[in-house]
Amino acid sequence: MDYIKKMFDNKEKTEIEKLGEFGLIDYLTKENTLKQKGSLKGVGDDAAVLDFTGKKVLVSTDMLLEGIHFDLAYTPLKHLGYKAIQVNLSDIYAMNGTPTQVTVSIGMSSKFPLEAIEELYQGIYLACEKYNVDLVGGDTTSSKQGLVISVTVLGEANEQDIVYRNGAEEGDLICVSGDLGGAYTGLQLLEREKLVYLENPNIQPDLEGKDYIVERQLKPEARRDIVELLKEIGVKPTAMIDISDGLASELLHICKQSNKGCNLYEDKIPLDPMTFETAREFNLDPTICALSGGEDYELLFTVKQADYDKIKFKLDITIIGYITEPAAGCNLVTKAGNVHALKAQGWNAFGG
Amino acid sequence: MDYIKKMFDNKEKTEIEKLGEFGLIDYLTKENTLKQKGSLKGVGDDAAVLDFTGKKVLVSTDMLLEGIHFDLAYTPLKHLGYKAIQVNLSDIYAMNGTPTQVTVSIGMSSKFPLEAIEELYQGIYLACEKYNVDLVGGDTTSSKQGLVISVTVLGEANEQDIVYRNGAEEGDLICVSGDLGGAYTGLQLLEREKLVYLENPNIQPDLEGKDYIVERQLKPEARRDIVELLKEIGVKPTAMIDISDGLASELLHICKQSNKGCNLYEDKIPLDPMTFETAREFNLDPTICALSGGEDYELLFTVKQADYDKIKFKLDITIIGYITEPAAGCNLVTKAGNVHALKAQGWNAFGG
Repeated sequence: MDYIKKMFDNKEKTEIEKLGEFGLIDYLTKENTLKQKGSLKGVGDDAAVLDFTGKKVLVSTDMLLEGIHFDLAYTPLKHLGYKAIQVNLSDIYAMNGTPTQVTVSIGMSSKFPLEAIEELYQGIYLACEKYNVDLVGGDTTSSKQGLVISVTVLGEANEQDIVYRNGAEEGDLICVSGDLGGAYTGLQLLEREKLVYLENPNIQPDLEGKDYIVERQLKPEARRDIVELLKEIGVKPTAMIDISDGLASELLHICKQSNKGCNLYEDKIPLDPMTFETAREFNLDPTICALSGGEDYELLFTVKQADYDKIKFKLDITIIGYITEPAAGCNLVTKAGNVHALKAQGWNAFGG
Repeated sequence: MDYIKKMFDNKEKTEIEKLGEFGLIDYLTKENTLKQKGSLKGVGDDAAVLDFTGKKVLVSTDMLLEGIHFDLAYTPLKHLGYKAIQVNLSDIYAMNGTPTQVTVSIGMSSKFPLEAIEELYQGIYLACEKYNVDLVGGDTTSSKQGLVISVTVLGEANEQDIVYRNGAEEGDLICVSGDLGGAYTGLQLLEREKLVYLENPNIQPDLEGKDYIVERQLKPEARRDIVELLKEIGVKPTAMIDISDGLASELLHICKQSNKGCNLYEDKIPLDPMTFETAREFNLDPTICALSGGEDYELLFTVKQADYDKIKFKLDITIIGYITEPAAGCNLVTKAGNVHALKAQGWNAFGG
């Protein structure tokens, strides 16, 4: 709350209480437009009314809590709203589907000025606009305990296009989009600069040249482009998942649900140079940042070997290993050629 | 948290941290079964996969926060889980639809023992079972700030059956199910007994003979039976809303969205004798408890005058007024025959 107070100290402030709950909803949705022809009725009744004729409906939900999932000390509210939508869209893309609608519930202190909530919603609307998704409902309430954001996303897909986690077959190639570990190293950087600032508020945060990994943490993008690319080149993954908890944890999910093993090659894991360098600065193993860091929101998927030629030169897709029979276990083959059992040490919301 | 600690002090406790997030999800969903043939895939992938062939999809969401929407001092966790589902189902019935699936996100202190979360889920599953609804997804996370429950409900309806808030016409009869004000007076009672207990923990709470209103507060039931009854007798409401914020606020929503006025008769508002008597004990006007109390989760709806004969002897439906032209305004006609402008002073989550 202190940060919010500070951020808005020299700006105009409107008390939410003056609007009341319905006034606030009206205000926040006054420019909300519905883009999807399947959105028959959005905000403003007991429920939204949607049409998915001919398609299957995909549903996923994620909750973000202040102090657990984000720190307002270094998270601009607009970015936070944007990210809250992205992490949900990512789940729909991971099913090889198209997100169509979201509902957004917000709990916040009544001391939040209206302008703060507006910034949050600017990020929400920006993400909705960019990904052609409609905001069709939600709930706003006072919170005694900091900011709470709960988003549910709906999406659609033809039944035959849906990709589950459980379809990987022996010999399938393991692929990942983009690069990994950036969001985690970006977080280390932001946490360090926060401590520096708390010790001496006159020192400016030193994030120069680190834009990429800071953005990976604060403003991730769901990989719609990868889903579209795969469709374009005629590749349907055999299994897919998005990387929210770290590569190791997600690959283990695919192997467990597909009842298979895997060989993952350390030297193939895509790392951005800035991720590598920053991890080193923090005395962290860059590979561990990729395996266990989480929040990269890249897509991890498996494809048939027959599809190799179609994906081998795609710049933003890296082949990092292959699926094996279950008895072989899930293995990480290190740069030195050693074989270790792959372990999930992903970020755990319960600290376990 | 003190109450949780106390509740489970002499019982077996399992630390959630030992399970981790995925272990917890596995544990909580191990007996979860899918009843709806439209639930193609429930918990366990990036998104649930649902089939609504031939129907429109209804979506609504509600968030419940500790200290705002519930007090664990007098709310059994099983009841809380049950209520969290009911308040969502109520929104789907208010569209004249059938709820089919829910997603449930929970944020809780890592100090919550597993047994506490299990009780919460027992209530959630009980409500799902009773109302034939599938739990198909959700999110569980640690919270630094007390218990957070966010539920999204999906439902279905034939397009021609959907009832919005905006269809009331001049001359339509205003009807309400059940009786009103009970949940609010029940809350007053629970709050009083909490204070008594805090002053002297040796005094047992005195709720004798008050079961009905206490249950109205702690364990509401969504009015599926009313939606079914109306279908049975061939009455389609012209407008409908569920009463979560008090009769006045909800009736004003219908009038505003329908662009109509109304006459509401105080002497027609259905009150249970226990509500009446308890309101008097607290020096509250029973009518105000019904108008502004909220959380009754009854259905407020309008029907054509031609349907009067079909509903006039239905025990659990009361006609409380009629819709007028907009210029006549929204009025409360008191028992003494005075006419007042109807005002929404409903419970406001922002205290406004």
